[in-house]
Amino acid sequence: MARIVMKFGGTSMAGIERIRSVAARVKREVAAGNQVAVVVSAMAGETDRLVGFCREASSLYDPKEYDVVVSAGEQITSGLLAIALQAAGVPARSWLGWQLPIATSDAHASARIEGIDMAALETSLAAGEVAVIPGFQGIDADGRVTTLGRGGSDTSAVAMAAAMKADRCDIYTDVDGVYTTDPRIVPRARKLKKVTYEEMLELASVGAKVLQTRSVGLAMKEGVRVQVLSSFTGEDAPMADTLPGTMIVGEEEIADMESQLITGIAHDKNEAKITLTAVPDKPGAVASIFEPLAAANINVDMIIQNIAHAAGSTDVTFTVPAADLARSIEALNAAREKIGFVSLVHDTRVAKISVVGVGMRSHAGVASTMFSTLGERGINIQAISTSEIKVSVLIEEDYTELAVRVLHTAYGLDAEDAA
Amino acid sequence: MARIVMKFGGTSMAGIERIRSVAARVKREVAAGNQVAVVVSAMAGETDRLVGFCREASSLYDPKEYDVVVSAGEQITSGLLAIALQAAGVPARSWLGWQLPIATSDAHASARIEGIDMAALETSLAAGEVAVIPGFQGIDADGRVTTLGRGGSDTSAVAMAAAMKADRCDIYTDVDGVYTTDPRIVPRARKLKKVTYEEMLELASVGAKVLQTRSVGLAMKEGVRVQVLSSFTGEDAPMADTLPGTMIVGEEEIADMESQLITGIAHDKNEAKITLTAVPDKPGAVASIFEPLAAANINVDMIIQNIAHAAGSTDVTFTVPAADLARSIEALNAAREKIGFVSLVHDTRVAKISVVGVGMRSHAGVASTMFSTLGERGINIQAISTSEIKVSVLIEEDYTELAVRVLHTAYGLDAEDAA
Repeated sequence: MARIVMKFGGTSMAGIERIRSVAARVKREVAAGNQVAVVVSAMAGETDRLVGFCREASSLYDPKEYDVVVSAGEQITSGLLAIALQAAGVPARSWLGWQLPIATSDAHASARIEGIDMAALETSLAAGEVAVIPGFQGIDADGRVTTLGRGGSDTSAVAMAAAMKADRCDIYTDVDGVYTTDPRIVPRARKLKKVTYEEMLELASVGAKVLQTRSVGLAMKEGVRVQVLSSFTGEDAPMADTLPGTMIVGEEEIADMESQLITGIAHDKNEAKITLTAVPDKPGAVASIFEPLAAANINVDMIIQNIAHAAGSTDVTFTVPAADLARSIEALNAAREKIGFVSLVHDTRVAKISVVGVGMRSHAGVASTMFSTLGERGINIQAISTSEIKVSVLIEEDYTELAVRVLHTAYGLDAEDAA
Repeated sequence: MARIVMKFGGTSMAGIERIRSVAARVKREVAAGNQVAVVVSAMAGETDRLVGFCREASSLYDPKEYDVVVSAGEQITSGLLAIALQAAGVPARSWLGWQLPIATSDAHASARIEGIDMAALETSLAAGEVAVIPGFQGIDADGRVTTLGRGGSDTSAVAMAAAMKADRCDIYTDVDGVYTTDPRIVPRARKLKKVTYEEMLELASVGAKVLQTRSVGLAMKEGVRVQVLSSFTGEDAPMADTLPGTMIVGEEEIADMESQLITGIAHDKNEAKITLTAVPDKPGAVASIFEPLAAANINVDMIIQNIAHAAGSTDVTFTVPAADLARSIEALNAAREKIGFVSLVHDTRVAKISVVGVGMRSHAGVASTMFSTLGERGINIQAISTSEIKVSVLIEEDYTELAVRVLHTAYGLDAEDAA
């Protein structure tokens, strides 16, 4: 007997027919002798509808009441899946966030899970019941409903797997695994059998949107084995423990770590570049740029300080999320006198390309391969940032697909038998 | 300062614009110095949508999970109204059924309120907050979500008014009060300023669908003054305590009780008539008819046992809700041998017409006026039933409107200045 958490996203819960398919999948895991908890999202589109109501009611809505409203979506699907499971002959019941309870911080609309009370749930699981748990929701110390932020159901599933000491946390999603890069750009992209938490964090945060980043961080911290699987492989698909999805695991589980230099290539077109010209080249000048951005809660990513001009000033270039560009410009202009820049130039027609792999820790030359490969194709690098397992460059947006393709080939990631 | 419960139905909650109008109304009561709790329904159509999901998932759905699903509708509107109130500058918060809590029986989908814990709510009201409470929902002793049955939000409002010892329970609805009869049939129908609980119970259960019957029964038991008001009289309408709605009160509050013979005329086309012919005229025969119907949970209303035939048999006629006709026929045919009837004749083209008024207790001649008035128009009476404050007759459905009109005139109910 294994203990399994299964998580299904909004597309899998969109309508009773699909909920019935989910029930059939859960039934197979139960029939195989497993103890199962299922974490569900709201029906596709439902959370957007509820968020829209809140925004329409007030642009400055109370996040406590927002949480009351939007948590209803998962409440509905959890009850419906319990009904569908019972109809399929599987004993099941729903457990709302406040019923277990799932204790969270009081940061409404973006709460963090602090603990899950397993007492009642253990009794239910031991009695052979499937536990159906609405994702995304919890309860704070004041007894008010909380939600975890968009995509939070992934985090709910991983937290539940940690609390249950589950053998596996299966995330059923629209894609059938994690690929070396976006298969829409590179048809020869390969599905990864395994990827480390750290790599997944870098791939997710730079654009490979398979799992909520926070859920991967939590899985790493708690050592939860996460498997990404397609929810669309039909009822006659192999069992999840033999399905060809992607396992997200610790480095120790990846035997051929050393031979695998680069795991994947990610791209992100949602960045905007800002350059401030002729900033005084003196101590504290750079801090005066980033303070107003931090105060406005804007994440600055890549930063380059150009070589100082002769006149004792320098240009500073950095990137922010494109969605925050207008607010960034406003904050910088408001602080213009203090910063002392001459002009502000911005550009949203940029893309960030990242190569990711734990293998690069022990291999030199990853960055130089990247630069020379792009250079050979005439692709200009506008900014560079690196971490221990990642090298990212900023390029002109039009070159995104070309860059991803040539890098995919250069690092030997192309599948041999793909189309 | 008064304490007021305000209840808004699904039409009033259908969309953010309407919720904002509700917030404006609540704000006026708060500005007048009142402590206010608001009980809300789900958006119009939402409960039907959620019930539809449950039925689609399984015709034999678990009522415990049904309650989880359908209670989400009121959860959503309570959060949204709290947001709209805050946006209007009125401190407010939502209190879900499990948060107060509202304790109910464990009869899922048709639970009864057993008690409302007022501790937290009193603190909140004393601090000047408006309490927004989702109607229709509660929690049972096992900590599972319950609902009160369709229309249950009226009952939630009355129960809340009783627990709060509210001065008034204002029910805002699609109609602007209780009329002497259906104004679509009788344009000269008059709006009643006051009606007693008992009369309202008879009027509601026979077709004047303004309030859930259970809520009226609860108001009577708890002595809650209920006011029925239109939710569509606009923001510049007079305050609720001077609004020309209908107050539902105890008999002692109606001073001119004696002069008011008949309060209203109700009609109900949702009955079906069944006649069993040649039932053996012996002790126990009638019981054998109604036992299988009771076992199938079918409410029998009017009953007539015809004069015995010479051959020692009799015909028995009775009515059941039209929606239960098919099940009734099935139950009776299954028991045919035991009952011993020869044939079963049924007719759904019937209507029940009722005259209601506490004044008839002290006046003879109410029934005879009814029979003679109908007889003069050639309307045949198929069955009669009476209670202390009501006389009902069953007639051919085609005569419904005519019967209501002539009775409305005969009992002197026509307004003098209406169109």
